[in-house]
Amino acid sequence: MNEMPKRAQSKIVDSPAAAVEGIADGATVLIGGFGVLQGWPSSAIAALRARGTRGLTVIANTPGFGPLSPQVLFENGQVRKLVASFGGFPYRMTPAEEMIGRGEVELELVPQGTLVERVRCGGAGIPAFYTPTGVGTEVARGKEAREIGGKPYLLEHAIRADWALVRAAAADAAGNLVFHGSSRNFNPVWAMGARATIAEVDEIVALGDLDPERVVTPGIFVDRVFRSTVRMNRAELIDMIRKLGRQSPEAGAMPGIPPDLMALRAAALFAEGDIVNLGIGLPTQCSNYVHGRAVTLHAENGVLGYGPFPEPGREDIDLYSAGGQLVTALPGASYFHSADAFAMARGGRVDKIVLGGFQVAANGDLANWKAPHQRAGTIGGAMDLAAGGGEIVVLMFHTTKSGASKLVAECTYPLTARACVAHVVTNLALIDVVAGKGFVLREVAPGVSIEEVRQSTAASLHVPEDVREMDFGA
Amino acid sequence: MNEMPKRAQSKIVDSPAAAVEGIADGATVLIGGFGVLQGWPSSAIAALRARGTRGLTVIANTPGFGPLSPQVLFENGQVRKLVASFGGFPYRMTPAEEMIGRGEVELELVPQGTLVERVRCGGAGIPAFYTPTGVGTEVARGKEAREIGGKPYLLEHAIRADWALVRAAAADAAGNLVFHGSSRNFNPVWAMGARATIAEVDEIVALGDLDPERVVTPGIFVDRVFRSTVRMNRAELIDMIRKLGRQSPEAGAMPGIPPDLMALRAAALFAEGDIVNLGIGLPTQCSNYVHGRAVTLHAENGVLGYGPFPEPGREDIDLYSAGGQLVTALPGASYFHSADAFAMARGGRVDKIVLGGFQVAANGDLANWKAPHQRAGTIGGAMDLAAGGGEIVVLMFHTTKSGASKLVAECTYPLTARACVAHVVTNLALIDVVAGKGFVLREVAPGVSIEEVRQSTAASLHVPEDVREMDFGA
Repeated sequence: MNEMPKRAQSKIVDSPAAAVEGIADGATVLIGGFGVLQGWPSSAIAALRARGTRGLTVIANTPGFGPLSPQVLFENGQVRKLVASFGGFPYRMTPAEEMIGRGEVELELVPQGTLVERVRCGGAGIPAFYTPTGVGTEVARGKEAREIGGKPYLLEHAIRADWALVRAAAADAAGNLVFHGSSRNFNPVWAMGARATIAEVDEIVALGDLDPERVVTPGIFVDRVFRSTVRMNRAELIDMIRKLGRQSPEAGAMPGIPPDLMALRAAALFAEGDIVNLGIGLPTQCSNYVHGRAVTLHAENGVLGYGPFPEPGREDIDLYSAGGQLVTALPGASYFHSADAFAMARGGRVDKIVLGGFQVAANGDLANWKAPHQRAGTIGGAMDLAAGGGEIVVLMFHTTKSGASKLVAECTYPLTARACVAHVVTNLALIDVVAGKGFVLREVAPGVSIEEVRQSTAASLHVPEDVREMDFGA
Repeated sequence: MNEMPKRAQSKIVDSPAAAVEGIADGATVLIGGFGVLQGWPSSAIAALRARGTRGLTVIANTPGFGPLSPQVLFENGQVRKLVASFGGFPYRMTPAEEMIGRGEVELELVPQGTLVERVRCGGAGIPAFYTPTGVGTEVARGKEAREIGGKPYLLEHAIRADWALVRAAAADAAGNLVFHGSSRNFNPVWAMGARATIAEVDEIVALGDLDPERVVTPGIFVDRVFRSTVRMNRAELIDMIRKLGRQSPEAGAMPGIPPDLMALRAAALFAEGDIVNLGIGLPTQCSNYVHGRAVTLHAENGVLGYGPFPEPGREDIDLYSAGGQLVTALPGASYFHSADAFAMARGGRVDKIVLGGFQVAANGDLANWKAPHQRAGTIGGAMDLAAGGGEIVVLMFHTTKSGASKLVAECTYPLTARACVAHVVTNLALIDVVAGKGFVLREVAPGVSIEEVRQSTAASLHVPEDVREMDFGA
């Protein structure tokens, strides 16, 4: 049995070990953090590892990677089940994913926006809700489907966990939490959704020293606070983050234009005033081509109005995009938590979404979360973003390295969303998906012939008379 | 047809009239504000009145009262329907309530927490959700009921409005909003739930001058901002607020103890560490008896940790409790919006709730929102607070002025919640509601006999041997 903390005059405890006291075998534990290297409640995780508690259900956006992340609980055999929106990562294998592959850890893969909303509802006393996210995909399997107002939705159930381990910038004795930069992500919502919340912070301040207007998580949601004992070499960490950002696949000997020009072409699709969300991988490169334009970048970890990568020496490790890159904040930027970020997305406030893809079908179906070689899958926020009805631009190589077309008559990989794609930008062409017509060629990359595009496309390709050479003008 | 604003580089418009441009006959309009005198988007409301738009559906916590409130739209015959948690007020009649009574305005009365959650869901792309609020009451009529995890819930549908008129402290050209004190209430959620949001602010600042950590409503939810043109005489306003606070019914010649001692006795029920919510009317007086105790006051307009009434001259008109009284903020206080306030309540984080009552039944049923003479009804947040499972203390006179008992075998007035009351504090006695037993007398007021209590109670009253004289010790 979990021994929950009693109400105390001060919620401050003096060590990570004291903070995780009472967590019992079989407990359900929400762990805050987005999935990047930094920002985990790392000393609480280390204390939970030292405690040796077993049979845990870990609920987190990702199992993370590296010694600061929940991975250490997996490596130590303490985890029975993972509930996450990323079971693994695109270009690296982790202990958690290996254990999932071997059947040693059960995986429940949940779209990111659904995950955070399920926990918010758990905290808010709402047992279940309907959502458009995941309709027509594997996520819908076994779930009640229902039409409301003529549109299809799925019933999702709330999650209320035993414990939450969250990470914040500062706290007071009442348990009030403030955050820094775009690192709020799941933390404020996880604090709501647990029977007891443990907050690891960089700084503990005197009661009255936090501006009540700046408090993000009111103390009512927090049971214990303690000062983080993990000290990191900032320069080393920044270097590691940079290297991780580069672990995307090589363009190699692909024909047509290189990735930076593909991103430039995709970014030229943005209109003045657009709110744009950029998916992981290639799409993040579009952020290089919006400076000075009236385009606002939205990232689901909780920032609106982020800007270019910081100059060396001016990095802020708490200010990153959903792709994990360190970014800057432009004038007019704002920060928020993941539930609000997905309210914006699902609520239809994001105008354009650039996503990577494994396959796009002629009817606009998109498959981008699980290829056959993957053990776990990486749903992330794509399903929720697609559900919001914004225009989806897929940015991907036209074919796999072995030459198989990624533009297909019908997707053979698991779907992200049905009939959602508007444009596909590849190394060979810009292709629109038009209802009733399918793939319609608009532009060919310089040096690429219409015939090459047709041969690389495993579905019928409409070629209007006005096909142009690719236009990179913004 | 409503003409929605186009995306603009700057969202600043230069007059209330320009701000409400495009609002068409028949539009659905969310109006922010809690229901107290101050804090309405008063110049936007005045501009909408001048515009003469008719057939409006107004969605607001209350129709308000006075020339700064939505009442002016009712008086001017512009409103077809009101969706609110208060259709009227306990001790005064308003034009809206009269029109509701005459059938000129349709009323949809919604529990406060359900109202704000329905709009949040509308903004978040969630079409419907289940809630425990209102189960077993008139609110459940016509709604789908469903057991989830062995408990009964109601299905509630999202609201997405055409327009929102909100009030904030400051904005920038990107539409980011910051608030002041406990006046956030519905405003941040209303901004989420409308197709177009118009923000009336005290101050417009340069882009980059708002701390992104302090932004409550990111600009993505706001379409137009303008500077309020309503200037109020602060001293007059404070005087009016004070007078309204005193418009509760006279204790008159009621026997037993006076209201302040009743409140003192109720407050003595609070335990160390308790989070307590105080309902409108008598219960607000409990706030006079918690100073220096480890009791945290929660108010559903969005403040945790409020303190005593301010000294004259130190009032802040944006810092009030849910009863409308101006209050102070104690060290460790925090502010939040209504959706979070009700997440705390419905989610079970509020330990004790003190409510007024029209009737309490021997099985713990509570009726406190509509007496037969009322045309509209005042649900407020009581149903949501009751749904959270906290201990409910009813603080009321034992009888009506005409001598009818308010402690009854079965409620004849519409229910607030079933079997929810734990304690009843009256001018005559402290009575517990005990499952299987009904009313159990614990304490009699000084000078009151057990027989008097029995005669004033219209249900069987268990009188244990250890009944004491009322204990006011905290």
